[in-house]
Amino acid sequence: MSLRDEAAAGPRPPPPGSPVAVALDLGGTNLKGGLVGPGGTLVGLGVRETRADKGYESVLGSLAGFVADLRAEAQRRELTVVGLGVGTPGPLNRAAGIVEFAPNLGWSQAPLAGDLARLTGVRGVRLENDANAAAFAEAWVGEGSGARCLLGVTLGTGVGAGLVVGGRLFTGATGVATELGHVIVRPEGRACRCGSKGCVEAYFSAWALVERCREHAADHPDHSLDLARLTPEDVFDASLRGDPLAGPVLDFGLRSLALALAGCLNLLNPDRVVFFGGLSARWESFGPALVEHVRTRSLPAAFSATRFSASKLEWAGVLGVGGLVLSQTPDL
Amino acid sequence: MSLRDEAAAGPRPPPPGSPVAVALDLGGTNLKGGLVGPGGTLVGLGVRETRADKGYESVLGSLAGFVADLRAEAQRRELTVVGLGVGTPGPLNRAAGIVEFAPNLGWSQAPLAGDLARLTGVRGVRLENDANAAAFAEAWVGEGSGARCLLGVTLGTGVGAGLVVGGRLFTGATGVATELGHVIVRPEGRACRCGSKGCVEAYFSAWALVERCREHAADHPDHSLDLARLTPEDVFDASLRGDPLAGPVLDFGLRSLALALAGCLNLLNPDRVVFFGGLSARWESFGPALVEHVRTRSLPAAFSATRFSASKLEWAGVLGVGGLVLSQTPDL
Repeated sequence: MSLRDEAAAGPRPPPPGSPVAVALDLGGTNLKGGLVGPGGTLVGLGVRETRADKGYESVLGSLAGFVADLRAEAQRRELTVVGLGVGTPGPLNRAAGIVEFAPNLGWSQAPLAGDLARLTGVRGVRLENDANAAAFAEAWVGEGSGARCLLGVTLGTGVGAGLVVGGRLFTGATGVATELGHVIVRPEGRACRCGSKGCVEAYFSAWALVERCREHAADHPDHSLDLARLTPEDVFDASLRGDPLAGPVLDFGLRSLALALAGCLNLLNPDRVVFFGGLSARWESFGPALVEHVRTRSLPAAFSATRFSASKLEWAGVLGVGGLVLSQTPDL
Repeated sequence: MSLRDEAAAGPRPPPPGSPVAVALDLGGTNLKGGLVGPGGTLVGLGVRETRADKGYESVLGSLAGFVADLRAEAQRRELTVVGLGVGTPGPLNRAAGIVEFAPNLGWSQAPLAGDLARLTGVRGVRLENDANAAAFAEAWVGEGSGARCLLGVTLGTGVGAGLVVGGRLFTGATGVATELGHVIVRPEGRACRCGSKGCVEAYFSAWALVERCREHAADHPDHSLDLARLTPEDVFDASLRGDPLAGPVLDFGLRSLALALAGCLNLLNPDRVVFFGGLSARWESFGPALVEHVRTRSLPAAFSATRFSASKLEWAGVLGVGGLVLSQTPDL
């Protein structure tokens, strides 16, 4: 696949002479990339297949090739590349540049930053958790522009989050903060993929919505779902049709997610909560019910300070990791 | 009660010429105060009775009198008073200088900062939540000295918390962050005093431990508690004796507190958690069990980054609010 420059149709490109970051957003299916300039300007945007099934070395080669193409693009446009950032799923060791665990890629303890630096000649490759990167993008140029404390929440295969306080990413003492997906909302609840039980991700995530419909199908024999080929989108659609299985599963999922978000409001007191990730495409249908559940479970002083919305940024992951490379402000 | 200067016996006094803050820690029973200097030096320490039953104006008069005595002490010692800080229970509106709600004092929407400025002539009185102040003191000169991200947890009449990140107090978008007490840990659980249900404070706090023993007494007729005059200390003592009512109530309280703390670890990733407040005096007896429950409910990467301990600071509230006045760093 060749680079797909969307500058003409969509985002503004950085003017010649600008500093830019080479930014890559590595997902289980797609690898997105582009050059990110001041003010969230974007150019050289492209999407390639990750092909994680071909193994770490092959993905590494694809990343390095993408970087080379973006550097050539920067040269053509007279842009100065100041760094390289990669958004990745899973917990990271930022200091060592290691992706500790990324089941969707089949990686464990992958020394990605060092390998990419070696292959591309770029020093100081920045790795960032993809939810953190997207949250940073929202605070920078998206829904939360001007927010004092923005919580970005990924709703997709898993549940993740990122927190941006006064324009700085909050990463905690050892870089593993805002792991929202494994906050426990049902102490005696169902097993989560992480080995614990009752995690919010075990109730509201792409996999959990499908699994819970299968688990409860026998209780609602009049349901209309094709359980063998069920997708989370089917669960949303069926719920809107009044399906007796999908409706309660989705509602319980939303109530569970609301408990975790209410905890976030009480502890973090954000003024903006922005949702992204695959399931957030259905925000219009589930958002109002979710927010109402959060209201009943959080302190009024915290709830009243918060506005909730879905992301409108198409390239949040790329923008975020690029913005973090461009930003000279250290993380919190 | 006269000022009780403990400088000779305990804390180091600030040397002549030092800038100091007049610091007051206003509790439901006692009003503590002192002069706080650089490096956590302390002088003029004293404890007076709050006598909240006499009403707001009376307490205000006591506060102003304490301030006058401390300013005179500063003058005698050739210390320069740079500001006045007051630690108070309950949620605050910092910008407006208002104590929004403090049931232990019988206050609601009390314009404390303005009234104190008027009575004392000191401008820019700083109000701070007492848990936040104590957490700041721990990060400054206590257990968490040198911590990157310190969570301070009050275990007393209620459950509260404060977070200090890189030496700065995290207060959230509107100043109501780290309201740990009303994080919900039992979604269908018992009523809390806040009007919600299942809050951690409804399972592990001075009032909740006593109430839960009374609620479950009929199930354990062989218990040894004097229910009419029961104190939380009795619950701890009886549990150590193997009492069949106090033991399970305390254990369930600890498991509930652990759920809330595990959520804090996953979201905030602190490297230090420090406990203070009345119940923390029993840390040696309940700490190890609590930490083990937290371990089973939090992500290994977050848990392994954290050390837990009880505060050793006798004057944490005074030190913290004084330190915040002295510090020129804005809150997060």
